[in-house]
Amino acid sequence: MNDGNLSPAARATTRGVCRHLVDRGYAPVTEVTLATGRRVDVMALAPDGSLLVVEVKSCAADYLSDGKWEEYLEYCDAFTFAVPPDFPLDLLPAAEGLIVADAHEAAVLRPPAPRPKLHASRRKAVTHLFATTAACRLRLLLDPPMARVLAEG
Amino acid sequence: MNDGNLSPAARATTRGVCRHLVDRGYAPVTEVTLATGRRVDVMALAPDGSLLVVEVKSCAADYLSDGKWEEYLEYCDAFTFAVPPDFPLDLLPAAEGLIVADAHEAAVLRPPAPRPKLHASRRKAVTHLFATTAACRLRLLLDPPMARVLAEG
Repeated sequence: MNDGNLSPAARATTRGVCRHLVDRGYAPVTEVTLATGRRVDVMALAPDGSLLVVEVKSCAADYLSDGKWEEYLEYCDAFTFAVPPDFPLDLLPAAEGLIVADAHEAAVLRPPAPRPKLHASRRKAVTHLFATTAACRLRLLLDPPMARVLAEG
Repeated sequence: MNDGNLSPAARATTRGVCRHLVDRGYAPVTEVTLATGRRVDVMALAPDGSLLVVEVKSCAADYLSDGKWEEYLEYCDAFTFAVPPDFPLDLLPAAEGLIVADAHEAAVLRPPAPRPKLHASRRKAVTHLFATTAACRLRLLLDPPMARVLAEG
């Protein structure tokens, strides 16, 4: 939940993407740690219950140094990259979804690629993880001393 | 999400209950509005995916003036009252769960009554509502100008 490690570009893109998603009825949560220990940049619950993962890449080096995005595909119904306006778009895989965003707005350049729906058991587990992450993080903001309990849990 | 209308006793009890729940691996969210428009005081997602509703009653008058808690039973797997230490306990239905809590800690005087599990479709809908409520509220705290979009939605 601490975005202190994000670059200003990553933070701006993440904010713009989240605004874009909320505007479309999605409920986004940033920095969601999967059961594998991997942390996705943005996970969003769609109005129909499907799960979208957004991988934010702030610059070419950020993309080239990190090939773990493919591991996320089996934890979502849809996947898309999100990058700032000055990102070299040709670097990105042409088959995957693409959003360009600054801190205020976002444009969908390519929709997420069609993908098999998650199995019911996986969807249930990921939705549970998503809900628990959002609720516990919210509680921590509303009652900061809870940090002690959550850290021990 | 605005608890400004809560009495100090209700606020303290709610906080203590949420701490108690987090301590036990539950993810609680306060003031969750159901599809019926009714708002439950605390809804919590258990580690096993079941849904607990906690109805907070701050004083006798609060309990006696409000009979809507029975409507919540069909939206949860388990139900319990939570009251402050000075609440007249004999007022409450003897069959239902009971937690006594102040702002810092809570004690379970009666566990929730056994109840039929929610149907899968209802559980899915309520879990989706819970997750969306938590995620959007969290987003609003992290990005306050989002209030405009959420208010329009």
